[in-house]
Amino acid sequence: MKPVYLDNNATTRTDPEAVAVMLPFFTEHYGNASSSHAFGAEVAGAVRNARRQLQGLLGAAHDHEVVFLSGGTEADNAAILSALEANPERNRIVTSAVEHPAILSCVSHLQQTRGVEVVMIGVDSDGRLDIDAYREALTPQTAIASIMWANNENGVLNPVEELANLAHEAGALFHTDAVQAAGKVPIDLSESAIDMLSLSGHKFHGPKGIGALFVRKGVKFRPMLRGGRQERGRRAGTENIPAIVGMGKAAEIALARLAEEQIRVRSLRNRLEKGILQQIDDCRVLGGALDRLPNTSNIAFDCLDSEAILHKLEQAGIAASSGSACASGSMEPSHVLRAMNVPVSLLQGAIRFSLSRENTGQDVDRVLAELPGIVSHLRSMSPLWRERHPEAEALPESLIANGGR
Amino acid sequence: MKPVYLDNNATTRTDPEAVAVMLPFFTEHYGNASSSHAFGAEVAGAVRNARRQLQGLLGAAHDHEVVFLSGGTEADNAAILSALEANPERNRIVTSAVEHPAILSCVSHLQQTRGVEVVMIGVDSDGRLDIDAYREALTPQTAIASIMWANNENGVLNPVEELANLAHEAGALFHTDAVQAAGKVPIDLSESAIDMLSLSGHKFHGPKGIGALFVRKGVKFRPMLRGGRQERGRRAGTENIPAIVGMGKAAEIALARLAEEQIRVRSLRNRLEKGILQQIDDCRVLGGALDRLPNTSNIAFDCLDSEAILHKLEQAGIAASSGSACASGSMEPSHVLRAMNVPVSLLQGAIRFSLSRENTGQDVDRVLAELPGIVSHLRSMSPLWRERHPEAEALPESLIANGGR
Repeated sequence: MKPVYLDNNATTRTDPEAVAVMLPFFTEHYGNASSSHAFGAEVAGAVRNARRQLQGLLGAAHDHEVVFLSGGTEADNAAILSALEANPERNRIVTSAVEHPAILSCVSHLQQTRGVEVVMIGVDSDGRLDIDAYREALTPQTAIASIMWANNENGVLNPVEELANLAHEAGALFHTDAVQAAGKVPIDLSESAIDMLSLSGHKFHGPKGIGALFVRKGVKFRPMLRGGRQERGRRAGTENIPAIVGMGKAAEIALARLAEEQIRVRSLRNRLEKGILQQIDDCRVLGGALDRLPNTSNIAFDCLDSEAILHKLEQAGIAASSGSACASGSMEPSHVLRAMNVPVSLLQGAIRFSLSRENTGQDVDRVLAELPGIVSHLRSMSPLWRERHPEAEALPESLIANGGR
Repeated sequence: MKPVYLDNNATTRTDPEAVAVMLPFFTEHYGNASSSHAFGAEVAGAVRNARRQLQGLLGAAHDHEVVFLSGGTEADNAAILSALEANPERNRIVTSAVEHPAILSCVSHLQQTRGVEVVMIGVDSDGRLDIDAYREALTPQTAIASIMWANNENGVLNPVEELANLAHEAGALFHTDAVQAAGKVPIDLSESAIDMLSLSGHKFHGPKGIGALFVRKGVKFRPMLRGGRQERGRRAGTENIPAIVGMGKAAEIALARLAEEQIRVRSLRNRLEKGILQQIDDCRVLGGALDRLPNTSNIAFDCLDSEAILHKLEQAGIAASSGSACASGSMEPSHVLRAMNVPVSLLQGAIRFSLSRENTGQDVDRVLAELPGIVSHLRSMSPLWRERHPEAEALPESLIANGGR
């Protein structure tokens, strides 16, 4: 049986159309875009085309506002470092407690090594940013505010336009990590107050190892990677032509299918959530009260360990995740769910299902057929659950076998 | 007629075998290596295999000494920044005037913004590093010495082992940019004094957008890109699986063919140089007196403009370059040739021919058939040349037409 892949916030399958347009750039048009001969000229044209495709996805006014680099992490790091370096008289960064590690680890390092003042804005139990605290944190010393467009774990969308305007009132730059938003929700930067925006190709069916940083025309920028004069001096290093071309195609496809897929995927996600809530007691959709990405559902199952659930799901051919891939292996509970003050017995049993345009109704059916048995089975073995639910009878062997598949 | 590609120091054609092994990782095994489910596990194994292939090319004692990142520029920047951050009590960098811009631009930026003391060691007219000056520059304040293994413009090889030992005597780290050396000359780091080494996949028939930094076991390392815990916490960002796998295969092939190709390519390069020197007056092989990469020849043609020569070569279906691709478009004369004190009338007419294992004797024949006519033709129109060579007769029309092809 075909596996059900519901971990699209970790990474997506590269669209075969994107792979197809990449292929000639490995073995035929393999020139260096910076070379002056024909081998270079033909690839330079392909990069221009891809830049316009990204411009389209972002609704940017100018194609040269798109800077290609190696991915979302580099984009996030570069945005923060640039803001500090371009505004040396400002020494404060305002960000949130639920950002991706690419922001959190970067700012915490700057705090420790360069004396940068970092203010972390919290969220409430729904995952809603504390906008009053955000507003107060913005001072004339603030170089940049960086708040993600959509959270990778719970899908919660932030009011980035409002946040950008507030940052500007304090004279600060505004950056948003849109790695999870790009290709999933409409983005129109032409009339926006957002100064910088990060995205990553492999989150919207483009290849890995490529991303972009939108830098609004007129925003002072200082490159992080230094060397050759590629990307108008904003990112050194030989252009990754095949990946740039592949991400361009993926952006074009994502934009073309956005309106339709947003609705279809949301409806699949909603059916998944509704089914789970109907069939399984004592679980909660985290961030469910707020406006969310259409593809993301983070559901916490009381008294269970998410690794055990994932293991059983995997045996049933279903791939999902607990927290983000970037934090996996760490065995630390998710910093996002902790910031949301999710009670411990729920926190440890949270599963993220993240869909994509490749998922179907059958995928949802598979989860709804497997998950209730898995949860019952695991709970029947959970001392915490049994302590809290003394009324629960031991499960018949048949159900245990089913859940154990 | 098939074009003749002699710009392999700018970039190489990706080996079709490398492309073939990459393909499944776009659309079949597309998981995130950090994910705990089967989609993640199958790609984690592929990364391990690629790391061992790189270990093999470098002769490294441990596979985990190889850190994957986005390319040579990132590797160079990361090495320098790490050395400074890991050794905050040391504030000096020793490097050479002929390094790649990925080193020069990085250290000059650190000098301007962080007060780091940078000492640039010069070279003589053959491109030979001034080892006495290097030795003197190494002080107890020196955090790192970074000297390239092989120069990208003239191919000159540096005595990196000796340089590394000298750095160690001063308690400094030693890094080498081996972007041009890897895959072209034997490297054995198992018994070496080199602490860090940069390489780039697309310079040895791997894909673009991927490289590696060798970090010797025990060397304190501080990551440049911060975020997730990928690469044992040494380089954040979702692993670029297809490119890692492709570079691994390219490393394996390069190692397997190194001994044979080193001899074959050197013989082609030598025949090219000999033929040019025999047929064309007033030209000089830059760096030719020293031990060089087997594939690189930088030849300066007196009284000519390299762009004009390249244009004519291109019309004849031959791609070469002037200086490096990373500096092209800048119209500045090469910093490498300036550091070698190449006289101006030669400096401006320097052409780099860089071969690879894909070049054949026919490619050399093509250059030897075309270039003499091109040079004669251009010189017949060069006021400088005619002033210096009043004896030169105007060329017959037939030869001008030939040279103009």
